[in-house]
Amino acid sequence: MTDKKYINQNIEPLNTKRNDKGNLEISGCDLVELAQKYSTPLYVMDEVTIRENAKDYIKAFSKYEKTHLTFAAKALMTGSIAKIFDSMGFGFDVVSKGEIYTLLNAKIDLSKTTFNGSNKTQEEIEFALENNIARVSVDNFLELELLNKIALKMNKIQKIHLRITPGIECHTHEYIQTGQIDSKFGFDLHTLDCAIELIKNKYKNLDLRGLHAHVGSQIFETQVFYDEIEVLLRQMKRIKDKFNIELDEMNIGGGLGITYTKEDRPPSIFETADIIMKSLEENTKKYGLNKPSLYIEPGRSLVCTAGFSLYTIGSEKKVEGIRKYIALDGGMADNPRPSMYGAKYCAVIANKKEEAPELVTVAGRYCESGDILIKDIELNSPKAGDILCVFSTGAYCYSMSSNYNRVLKPSMVLINNGKSDIIVKRQTLEQLVQNDVILERL
Amino acid sequence: MTDKKYINQNIEPLNTKRNDKGNLEISGCDLVELAQKYSTPLYVMDEVTIRENAKDYIKAFSKYEKTHLTFAAKALMTGSIAKIFDSMGFGFDVVSKGEIYTLLNAKIDLSKTTFNGSNKTQEEIEFALENNIARVSVDNFLELELLNKIALKMNKIQKIHLRITPGIECHTHEYIQTGQIDSKFGFDLHTLDCAIELIKNKYKNLDLRGLHAHVGSQIFETQVFYDEIEVLLRQMKRIKDKFNIELDEMNIGGGLGITYTKEDRPPSIFETADIIMKSLEENTKKYGLNKPSLYIEPGRSLVCTAGFSLYTIGSEKKVEGIRKYIALDGGMADNPRPSMYGAKYCAVIANKKEEAPELVTVAGRYCESGDILIKDIELNSPKAGDILCVFSTGAYCYSMSSNYNRVLKPSMVLINNGKSDIIVKRQTLEQLVQNDVILERL
Repeated sequence: MTDKKYINQNIEPLNTKRNDKGNLEISGCDLVELAQKYSTPLYVMDEVTIRENAKDYIKAFSKYEKTHLTFAAKALMTGSIAKIFDSMGFGFDVVSKGEIYTLLNAKIDLSKTTFNGSNKTQEEIEFALENNIARVSVDNFLELELLNKIALKMNKIQKIHLRITPGIECHTHEYIQTGQIDSKFGFDLHTLDCAIELIKNKYKNLDLRGLHAHVGSQIFETQVFYDEIEVLLRQMKRIKDKFNIELDEMNIGGGLGITYTKEDRPPSIFETADIIMKSLEENTKKYGLNKPSLYIEPGRSLVCTAGFSLYTIGSEKKVEGIRKYIALDGGMADNPRPSMYGAKYCAVIANKKEEAPELVTVAGRYCESGDILIKDIELNSPKAGDILCVFSTGAYCYSMSSNYNRVLKPSMVLINNGKSDIIVKRQTLEQLVQNDVILERL
Repeated sequence: MTDKKYINQNIEPLNTKRNDKGNLEISGCDLVELAQKYSTPLYVMDEVTIRENAKDYIKAFSKYEKTHLTFAAKALMTGSIAKIFDSMGFGFDVVSKGEIYTLLNAKIDLSKTTFNGSNKTQEEIEFALENNIARVSVDNFLELELLNKIALKMNKIQKIHLRITPGIECHTHEYIQTGQIDSKFGFDLHTLDCAIELIKNKYKNLDLRGLHAHVGSQIFETQVFYDEIEVLLRQMKRIKDKFNIELDEMNIGGGLGITYTKEDRPPSIFETADIIMKSLEENTKKYGLNKPSLYIEPGRSLVCTAGFSLYTIGSEKKVEGIRKYIALDGGMADNPRPSMYGAKYCAVIANKKEEAPELVTVAGRYCESGDILIKDIELNSPKAGDILCVFSTGAYCYSMSSNYNRVLKPSMVLINNGKSDIIVKRQTLEQLVQNDVILERL
């Protein structure tokens, strides 16, 4: 064991410090200057942290040559973010036509992309195959039939994985468990054989290459991955014996946790990779199988810590004997995770040195009592006009953002060693009404 | 007491029936034809139900001449919906520059509009005043100062209300209580006098006309409104005695409940209006005050029942001994209320007569276990390709919708006696990436 902390084990991105002005500085960028230049609310992504994190993934799995690293686009998808992962050799895990379109728009082909999802539409499957998607992870019987029909029509043999429900629970928030038996995703273990029969005997345009599972999100126990791989290999052995089909690919999904608050103690990417490789080593031996290609789909753990949100503090309200509220110019529409999951976040005042810590509750600007971003946090005597930096907002904030209260979506800036560039422009009022049709007769 | 049920006491919109084909028909529109014509997922609003509902509000308050009905835009804001309410004499309760912009874009002036919100920005206040907003409901001390400064600069006297926290709780979901003491909204009763002193002595560009409160959402107990008005009048009497200021306006917010499922038993608009008018009658007498102008801000109860969502059923999954899932082509991104609040909905298969009820769980298409729209509902042997109609989605669905998983936002159709027209066009893939900036250097 070492004391070294890796990126997903820290709350702050790499190279976070107070500069001479007393302002918070990340990757050489003064956050107060960022807020002034781009205005708030603002999503910021640190390219250095993303790339170092991605390098850690590459390094951690370097001992297992047949590893395919794919970024789970649902965590954060923009053209520039996709370009970063593409440039580092990552593929993508996509779940919609929109995600595929975003890749194509960034001139990224689908040669390393897997199409996931429990209810893909015909239009989406056609679009994916037209654009030569590398793998489709098939979730259910309807999709098997539909995909085969489309592949046949296009005169293609489509490489697929079968998504299974491995029956493993992980100790995480109820909403983000996916491996348990009672799940909307994938084939149960006792319907799997039926799917394989169909592929073998009927769906001649499908080429079954492996199994896929995903056991949850924000996982802190590496044992879950060990067990998941054991289940997958046991099934692959069974399939080999029963159907004489040797599957040479395995997709274990994503789910590695990150550190939102000090209470979170996720294992590092390296510890996780070691367990995964150990399970592959031991369980392929146990079942007498060749080592399969390993697909892994991290999302949150690749981008969350690299991202933070800047807000300007506005009004305050002291409820005598109960709490003091401070209000931001953003909230539940740019970060729905606190109201959706009760998610916890850390934050600091960016524009002044630590002085007098004051216990406050950070409220969003939205007209809803539930729009509380952080309940009970010590901040450095927050005042109107101060800039608040909320950490760990790189995943599932922009991607889940809405126009609730008709507030415009913030812009996103990519920073790198003192440089900063807009990678998502702020929404405009004209865009807000661009699909509005006002009927003459009204 | 009468057995008659009013719109907010029904799950279905007016004129809902099975037609000769066995299809569900609402306001003369066959839902299967709507789904075919406009594709799914689809938001549908029935203009007849909206207008009848609005008429009920007008009629219910007709005995109290000084009533100002305003529609709470955050429930559902599009140009055409705004036009309907404008044409019926309603004003608007808005909470952002974007909502104001949407009104102006529909050529609706702000002469009956109140600007609410706990953290309005300078830019928003300037925009509201430039466009002659009728009232600003001031939430806090910072806003008082800011608003006075802006009004002074524009050489205006701005009519205002003060938002107060009346200290009344209502028995509803924790997230949507707003009247309790521990609230981010408004002035506490013991800071109110300080605000009034400031207005009287310092903020000469503010014209204080009344008090504003809002005690919650999805309220089923009319007594809450009675008590709220009593609190407001008591304060108005106190203010009259102490400051010699006779406030002649009162804004009681919104909050009347609707019927999502059979378990919901909201009072009708008429019962609610009667209690409100009774409280005004009795408590103005009690405190020796003239009857004030009454502002009321219904949102959900004006549009929720008039709206429904159409989905196409896709894949299914039977988990032996536990449950059967059916999957839709939409879900938590077009209706986040089930995952956000645990909200419950009713639904029926639109394209076939009741035959064999089957207990299923309705899952959304999004890659998240929490994306379950309805847990355990009896549907008429649902199969892939069937059209599901989910009721009561007129409020807080479109307005809270996101592009999670990069899925496009659905379109919205307005129906009226067999006619149907698009009032919000479906988002396009081009729009999805229109703010994406792909940096050359990546």
